[in-house]
Amino acid sequence: MESWKTKARRIVLEQRPWLVVEYHTVELPDGRTISDWPWIITPDYVNVVAVTEDGSFICFRQVKYGLDGTTLAIVGGFVEEGEAPLAAAKRELLEETGCESADWVHLGSYRVDPNRGIAMGHLYLARRAHFITQRNADDLEEQELILLTRAQIESALASGEFKVLAWAASLAFALRKL
Amino acid sequence: MESWKTKARRIVLEQRPWLVVEYHTVELPDGRTISDWPWIITPDYVNVVAVTEDGSFICFRQVKYGLDGTTLAIVGGFVEEGEAPLAAAKRELLEETGCESADWVHLGSYRVDPNRGIAMGHLYLARRAHFITQRNADDLEEQELILLTRAQIESALASGEFKVLAWAASLAFALRKL
Repeated sequence: MESWKTKARRIVLEQRPWLVVEYHTVELPDGRTISDWPWIITPDYVNVVAVTEDGSFICFRQVKYGLDGTTLAIVGGFVEEGEAPLAAAKRELLEETGCESADWVHLGSYRVDPNRGIAMGHLYLARRAHFITQRNADDLEEQELILLTRAQIESALASGEFKVLAWAASLAFALRKL
Repeated sequence: MESWKTKARRIVLEQRPWLVVEYHTVELPDGRTISDWPWIITPDYVNVVAVTEDGSFICFRQVKYGLDGTTLAIVGGFVEEGEAPLAAAKRELLEETGCESADWVHLGSYRVDPNRGIAMGHLYLARRAHFITQRNADDLEEQELILLTRAQIESALASGEFKVLAWAASLAFALRKL
């Protein structure tokens, strides 16, 4: 199977670091050309399922602009320029919870959108996470840290209380490793 | 916890039906205002984990423009204007595989991005799927239908062969119901 080829690209919207939209001219294997194929670039991100030694899942109850009402959430944030994904995961865990862990499992790195790109999501499990300092989250949203049992995580997953795909996916992947 | 309020919105890029970008003026609970908050709209989509009576998972090997090399994939596509998500899932299953099912499980509906919106992904499991007609996929990409066992799905998930978040997530959610 042959991949499509990018023959040209031009930026049509630019608001760095949050969003760049390009239009690509794409050549198909049969020679056809598609012009103005939208290609969306937002920052790559990490999510972290953090579990303490005694099996508590470190979560948040919070609001997010893109969601109705409150949601359950896990640790996450953008990968900074030049930062390795695992380093970003460790930084976000420390900032958002005051925890560190010496036992990291990579749950996979995934494309958000098969057609438009958008971002890579790098998902991690941090086992034996332990509190070492105060939280220092820089998020604009109100956020309450809560500890959930495995049974509570399974129930919340089943009832859709984690409203964002990457958060629910990270938890489902993590449960397969725990 | 109080949600942020949208005080104004304006379209800054429009290529319907594939992409609309808006800038929102957003008011925070403490009274601060953020202008030019990027809000991305792409079509809502469905993904379907289709499993036959004898436990075969109906998958594809294919290329996608947003991915390097080939990927394993599951049934999926956009929800059409005015179409219910489950109806879209049934339509995509029939078009892409020639199958139907009378045993549908909703695996959840998730926001792609907590900040920018982007789309809702509606994920389904179709049990006892059976072939009733020829495939009639309208996708532009080459796509080979393959049947995988549960063990092969577990192995492919672990090694990242399903390269798109929604596809891997749908499978992880489905495995919890099978």
